[in-house]
Amino acid sequence: MLSETISQIADFLFNPRSVAVIGASSDNEKERSGGWVGRLVQFGYRGRIYPINLNTEEILGLKAYHSVESIPDSVDYAIIAVPAQRVPEAVKQCIRKRIKMVHVYAAGFGETGKEEGGRLQAQLEDLIRNSETRLIGPNCMGVYSPESGLTFDTRFSKEPGPIGFLSQTGVGGRRLIYLANQRGLRFSKAISYGNALDLDGPDFLEFFLEDPKTKFILVYIEGLRQGKRFFSALKRCTKTRPVVMLKGGLSEGGAGAVASHTASLAGNRQVWQALFKQTGVIAVESFEEAVEQLVALVNLPIVKGRRVGLVGRGGGIGVVATDMCEAQGLLVPQFTQETREQLARITPAEAGSSVRNPVEIGLGKRGLSEHYGRGIKLVASDPQIDLVMTFLNPEDYIHYGIGDWAEQVSNELIELGKSLSKPLVVVFMPGRDVKVFELIIQIQDKCQEAGIACFSNFDAAIKATAKLVTYYEFKQDR
Amino acid sequence: MLSETISQIADFLFNPRSVAVIGASSDNEKERSGGWVGRLVQFGYRGRIYPINLNTEEILGLKAYHSVESIPDSVDYAIIAVPAQRVPEAVKQCIRKRIKMVHVYAAGFGETGKEEGGRLQAQLEDLIRNSETRLIGPNCMGVYSPESGLTFDTRFSKEPGPIGFLSQTGVGGRRLIYLANQRGLRFSKAISYGNALDLDGPDFLEFFLEDPKTKFILVYIEGLRQGKRFFSALKRCTKTRPVVMLKGGLSEGGAGAVASHTASLAGNRQVWQALFKQTGVIAVESFEEAVEQLVALVNLPIVKGRRVGLVGRGGGIGVVATDMCEAQGLLVPQFTQETREQLARITPAEAGSSVRNPVEIGLGKRGLSEHYGRGIKLVASDPQIDLVMTFLNPEDYIHYGIGDWAEQVSNELIELGKSLSKPLVVVFMPGRDVKVFELIIQIQDKCQEAGIACFSNFDAAIKATAKLVTYYEFKQDR
Repeated sequence: MLSETISQIADFLFNPRSVAVIGASSDNEKERSGGWVGRLVQFGYRGRIYPINLNTEEILGLKAYHSVESIPDSVDYAIIAVPAQRVPEAVKQCIRKRIKMVHVYAAGFGETGKEEGGRLQAQLEDLIRNSETRLIGPNCMGVYSPESGLTFDTRFSKEPGPIGFLSQTGVGGRRLIYLANQRGLRFSKAISYGNALDLDGPDFLEFFLEDPKTKFILVYIEGLRQGKRFFSALKRCTKTRPVVMLKGGLSEGGAGAVASHTASLAGNRQVWQALFKQTGVIAVESFEEAVEQLVALVNLPIVKGRRVGLVGRGGGIGVVATDMCEAQGLLVPQFTQETREQLARITPAEAGSSVRNPVEIGLGKRGLSEHYGRGIKLVASDPQIDLVMTFLNPEDYIHYGIGDWAEQVSNELIELGKSLSKPLVVVFMPGRDVKVFELIIQIQDKCQEAGIACFSNFDAAIKATAKLVTYYEFKQDR
Repeated sequence: MLSETISQIADFLFNPRSVAVIGASSDNEKERSGGWVGRLVQFGYRGRIYPINLNTEEILGLKAYHSVESIPDSVDYAIIAVPAQRVPEAVKQCIRKRIKMVHVYAAGFGETGKEEGGRLQAQLEDLIRNSETRLIGPNCMGVYSPESGLTFDTRFSKEPGPIGFLSQTGVGGRRLIYLANQRGLRFSKAISYGNALDLDGPDFLEFFLEDPKTKFILVYIEGLRQGKRFFSALKRCTKTRPVVMLKGGLSEGGAGAVASHTASLAGNRQVWQALFKQTGVIAVESFEEAVEQLVALVNLPIVKGRRVGLVGRGGGIGVVATDMCEAQGLLVPQFTQETREQLARITPAEAGSSVRNPVEIGLGKRGLSEHYGRGIKLVASDPQIDLVMTFLNPEDYIHYGIGDWAEQVSNELIELGKSLSKPLVVVFMPGRDVKVFELIIQIQDKCQEAGIACFSNFDAAIKATAKLVTYYEFKQDR
């Protein structure tokens, strides 16, 4: 193992010109539906694919080889998908073939907690240490690189974007990418690296730190060995790129679960919390929260303070939203006298109207009134307010039969987003109705294309906004 | 105002034989789509309806009267839907007509913070104090009583159920009922009582305390005047009926919002938190959480401890779920040696399998295996475990094209629910795909009919379960 920096090998990792799949299935149907060759073919991998299989000459129309050593050309990247016991032999062949990058998909190593698994992992470590080959895994899903067409799931978006993701979980990492894609988020690169026998969290962080295509970093991590290096890389990252981190194994039970998942030492909760604070990392507590945090980061401009102007219909709903904001460290202060007077001029004095913060204005049964936009603009121009959060209940509008509501709301919000001098956060209140669900998705997608952050519940919107403000404050203080 | 107990007037409140609507619209179309008479007709109110309007003889086929006093029969209940300035005169007429119960829908009283509103509210108070008439409101939606067909929204379920709900918010209360209905929950009675000029929180609590049809109580409250009476009623309630409470205005900003919403004094956060603890009230922090908490209470049997056995696919997902459980005060302990040995016998030693808690077993690509059910039964029989929580990802199954998955999963879960000696909590991981959304709803509804608690995210499932356990521990200790 040479002391190359990650950027020296990045091309082999994320843009390999050729991939060998050791353990490709000779059953074309099986390979197509769940195999690595099938995945690369379907996803449109742009390099050469070499299936390795002893019993067949062709897989999915590609010439198959009996071993990597029988491939006539050079190979940049190998995926090893054979059972754990056969992995050391496969790795030996890759080393002899001088394959730069090997991804060991197979599980059954350190994470089993059994002697056999530990022995196999130690054997791999020995092989790699004395070679020019670098290893991802074992027990992981490997690389997703939309630019080169390398992937571990064909459902992922083929479109590249600004998020770099390093993940110590495979199934969970896949879920995160998929959820994020559904929310309109796109990735520069993602790596699921499992037991991290060779390439580890700090390597990937250092890569993202210098990758011009990565503007945001998402991390799922369970444990690490090079704590100082990781810490230092994080500190440098957060200066230029917000880092969202889900740390698995912060609890006692979670630490036990981590041992059997990726054989990692989870570390102490206090230590990690200190690390989050010192590095400015945005810590999240669930997969869903990670995605919503990224939605906020990607779609919102820099938010300069924590004073929220709340605008929506329903006095009690505004009260609870205020409590939720303040519980997360945001503030819902009073407007200036001037703003209140101006709001009073456009607010009808009837059931459910208030010119105080949270303000209830112009959201009648018939859709958004002209007052709505004017009200939001008034709130945004108040010097006591740093950002506007507005909440809408699609259920009501569907009930009252306002057919073009989605159209009307998207246009109004996009228009507002353009004209306001302060950030606008939109919350669509969730329901359990398919029509409401579809309507929210439709508006969200339209608004997000225009760079407006839309959430489908208060909890997500408020947590993501609060943590975003805290990150920008941290950055400001440096 | 006589010192009648609430149970003496409950029939007039929840099962009035006749309702007068003061301020009915003479425009039939308008009345049908958004009026009180239209609402009662559409919802199938079972008593007599008397529309009051000066300009017409008939509204929606019902004979209209010029005033309540011109109605030939006695009237149990009146809804006053005229502007605030005209409310005192309407109330005077109701008092002269000896109408027992008056619901003042109109806003524009104490909650405006203006002199005029305060004066009007004081005037109403004077009138009521010296009468035999009782008043709900002003500034509220009134009563929903599915048994009698009285309602403030036609979307509510006509089917009665075990939940009694008292709400100091109208729009928010409506949203709560609607969300709860969509989740399969049903109400015995609900009251939105706004400014609480006469009938107040303690009155309704005391009613629910003795109502044989109410098994669970939901409270949205902003402030109260009879603190001691409320506290004492709550203490009695929680002995026999779990109380879920969303307190609006716990934060500083929230308390300000409460003043302009229902003119209530919100009170101090510490005082309320002490009250929750001493009374065993289950405090929640959002409308959505309130509903999910009720789903847990209605569908889960008594849970005897906080040790969770987690079963699902995805090592990282299990790790994060473990952390989330422990953050909420649940525990995810190790299984006994015996359970682990038995699990090892049915668990294939391949990528993504673990016989430790959280356990990953028999959830392959092809749907639920026979191992899945056996695994859950083994976990449930472990003496270290008090309840089982299983998580499933519908997205994967749709992706792999398992057509009858919903059917397969519902049947298996219902079968398991019947055979286990410990509670079963099911989490369907959410996505943003309409098909997934529909699939989850379909399975949830089927399972909940069979009394299994199904959630669509970890956060909701874990919080609701943890608070449920805390409630049963509190009850046990009394």
